[in-house]
Amino acid sequence: MVGLAVMGANLALNVESRGYRVAVNNRTSSKTDAFLAGPAAGKNIVGCYSLADLVDALSTPRKIMLMVKAGPAVDALIEQLIPLLSPGDVIIDGGNSYYLDSERRTGTVEKAGLLYVGTGVSGGEEGALLGPSLMPGGTKAAWPIVKPILQAIAAKVGPNGDIPCAQWVGPRGAGHYVKMVHNGIEYGDMQLICEAYLLLQQVAGLDNAQLYDTFAAYNRGELQSYLIEITRDIFSVEDPEGDGFLVDAVLDRAGAKGTGKWMSQLALDLGVPSTLVTAAVYARSLSALKEARVRAAAILKGPEPEPYEGDPDAFREAVRQALYASKICSYAQGFVQLLAAAGEHDWPLDYGSIALLWRGGCIIRAQFLDRIKEAFDESPDLENMLLHPYFHSAVQNAQPSWREVVATATGRGLPIPALSTALAYYDGYRTARLSTNLLQAQRDYFGAHTYERTDREGTFHTDWLHARKEPAIETD
Amino acid sequence: MVGLAVMGANLALNVESRGYRVAVNNRTSSKTDAFLAGPAAGKNIVGCYSLADLVDALSTPRKIMLMVKAGPAVDALIEQLIPLLSPGDVIIDGGNSYYLDSERRTGTVEKAGLLYVGTGVSGGEEGALLGPSLMPGGTKAAWPIVKPILQAIAAKVGPNGDIPCAQWVGPRGAGHYVKMVHNGIEYGDMQLICEAYLLLQQVAGLDNAQLYDTFAAYNRGELQSYLIEITRDIFSVEDPEGDGFLVDAVLDRAGAKGTGKWMSQLALDLGVPSTLVTAAVYARSLSALKEARVRAAAILKGPEPEPYEGDPDAFREAVRQALYASKICSYAQGFVQLLAAAGEHDWPLDYGSIALLWRGGCIIRAQFLDRIKEAFDESPDLENMLLHPYFHSAVQNAQPSWREVVATATGRGLPIPALSTALAYYDGYRTARLSTNLLQAQRDYFGAHTYERTDREGTFHTDWLHARKEPAIETD
Repeated sequence: MVGLAVMGANLALNVESRGYRVAVNNRTSSKTDAFLAGPAAGKNIVGCYSLADLVDALSTPRKIMLMVKAGPAVDALIEQLIPLLSPGDVIIDGGNSYYLDSERRTGTVEKAGLLYVGTGVSGGEEGALLGPSLMPGGTKAAWPIVKPILQAIAAKVGPNGDIPCAQWVGPRGAGHYVKMVHNGIEYGDMQLICEAYLLLQQVAGLDNAQLYDTFAAYNRGELQSYLIEITRDIFSVEDPEGDGFLVDAVLDRAGAKGTGKWMSQLALDLGVPSTLVTAAVYARSLSALKEARVRAAAILKGPEPEPYEGDPDAFREAVRQALYASKICSYAQGFVQLLAAAGEHDWPLDYGSIALLWRGGCIIRAQFLDRIKEAFDESPDLENMLLHPYFHSAVQNAQPSWREVVATATGRGLPIPALSTALAYYDGYRTARLSTNLLQAQRDYFGAHTYERTDREGTFHTDWLHARKEPAIETD
Repeated sequence: MVGLAVMGANLALNVESRGYRVAVNNRTSSKTDAFLAGPAAGKNIVGCYSLADLVDALSTPRKIMLMVKAGPAVDALIEQLIPLLSPGDVIIDGGNSYYLDSERRTGTVEKAGLLYVGTGVSGGEEGALLGPSLMPGGTKAAWPIVKPILQAIAAKVGPNGDIPCAQWVGPRGAGHYVKMVHNGIEYGDMQLICEAYLLLQQVAGLDNAQLYDTFAAYNRGELQSYLIEITRDIFSVEDPEGDGFLVDAVLDRAGAKGTGKWMSQLALDLGVPSTLVTAAVYARSLSALKEARVRAAAILKGPEPEPYEGDPDAFREAVRQALYASKICSYAQGFVQLLAAAGEHDWPLDYGSIALLWRGGCIIRAQFLDRIKEAFDESPDLENMLLHPYFHSAVQNAQPSWREVVATATGRGLPIPALSTALAYYDGYRTARLSTNLLQAQRDYFGAHTYERTDREGTFHTDWLHARKEPAIETD
């Protein structure tokens, strides 16, 4: 293990706890000392004070995992390791690397006669220690070599708790791409939950205790997931610095680390409408403009607030339906983007297996992923999850409530960009004939961009200006 | 003029028509011959069969405009021209170049002792010939040299028709950035108009003749613009291949050339919520999946269609209000992105002047831009157009109709991603306290990402897991 920040340290402890001897190295040797004297004390962990020592301490084929800051540090380590290693050794990058870097590094390392693995690691500090979700890609021949260790340390799911959330994803950068999509879906889930919170609080007037009960109830049904569970918990945490609940004292300025942005930018390049992750990224951007929003709030007015006349229990259920339907759309978009990326990069992805990787250990882990796995196992070529009977009937059932919730928020001036973009996606996707015929007519009118016709093959251009009706002379 | 495709040819003719002698060159000499024998016959236009001949034909300081495909062809021409030119000569790139290329090329050309201009050119073929909108950036010292020609050929606006839509934008890539934002706003305008069309047709049941009258009426009010005008016209064009109107025979699969995508990707990098252009780009992506939508339509059902009980005239007016309010949000986002980009690149942009450049000649030309110019002239530091009294009262007035239209479409299953994202932006921007406090709590819970507080400075972290209420044991 190279890199002993919290993720690297916890992964090393995890590996050791499964009966392996682990050699560790950190650029700053004091960090290695602290680790050995602290969490690693008395464990089967060997400190190494140079990469050469680390390499000498390992039996072949060596398995060297890098847990350092994504970017140039990974390239520098690869460059230093290559001359020290022997053919058949494996370099594993477990950082949050951009997938194109992993595409490139796989080639570099393979050219040196070595094997490369770029793996997504999800689950935070606790997951790293007790059982993360692992999404490895790279040199396929590396999989048999690293599989025993990666499957040993990974989260386990299934009725008997023996299915590891660690399976080979695909060539080169495929593992890091899948991790990026995981994170993008996480952005969508979190934003949708925030919008549900906004509605429950602002429309139905629920207090934190009622929100706790609501999310606890949500977590007993189709929405059961880690993020719903921690949301429930959050509403129970008291403010250590004052009266009341901590969530009310937290500033509404959201941060971001960039994977949602990457996924959005790549969706735009691929031409696939991953609107949920993008709505979530933009919602975070807007939230970050806190001072600007405070200034704007003094000037821009919404509708007059009205008391809620409906039944709060019915509204809670309607919000749950809206959340569930939107979540299905969000995952559908994520898998569509994976399908498009797999096509572009020639990755033979197994979508059911990917759903299973996300079933445990990671942030988006949810019961619901069993249904996704089943859907893709049944139809490996499923072009969109929404077309599977389980999901289209789920959305069908949720639809009236979903529309009601979006309309309620719209009328009351509550911003719900993710819930409404999910609905616009669903309605757009199920519309055989959109109104973009007009858009193509406009493009052909002003730019001679040509158009296709509904009734025959070919590309057409019309001189619309000369074919139009002569406009009436305007008298004003 | 180098490059005699339609844009280059028309710009050359435009320059000649203002009393200048123009030397032209094209890589393929037959194209030069055809131009000289055709549209340029009898005009003060000189054919040159090499770049050296072209350079020799010009008096100093030379002004050489490139109208070639954006990308490597521009770099290749610059490389060939540099050794042929004399200090003080100007190279002008009028293609749709990516702004970072113009940033870089300005440096390359300046290092060679020459001056560089990267200019946005909008208005299509007709604009190029009769008066485009020009958005030049680059080496500031080039402006006095090229200004007389560029202002002579540009569209003219103002009460006396004497204000040219050609003003200096800023250093390096600023001109091409402004052109990109123009195009992104154009994406938003077009998508919004398509959604209005969808609503008018599907809800109020308007036929093409009624749509013609509706857009004709829209064009007499606040929405007066080129795009509304051509939309009106489109509804009058009969199908040359059959009965009925051509717009109904046009396939609803939209194309795109990439500037909307660039603007979205750069907004994501800047962290500014340019949600309208992105919604428009994604709507085009979804429209392009024609076969997939036809398959999905057979499976995924919307609400049962209901006859419209309201007053069609009132609905027409409501849609107009929704369109106008959304358009204001879209332009507000475009100017916010310009402000952010100007900050990043140290461009001293004049936003009122930019609004005026778009007042004539280009695709988004509209009366409404006079109001934007006035707003920025009054308050050059305006952080968001929506805060100016003119626009916030316009949106305030439109608001009830806007919400009604979005709710109507939501209930009826009509996809209106742009109208609804505009509303979500407005509602998010005017909300002092969003629900993203929950999102920050989640991030701190699972990833120790820390949070800020509403009541004091600093960064905080809480061990939420241990501070939470112990959840009830689930019995299912």
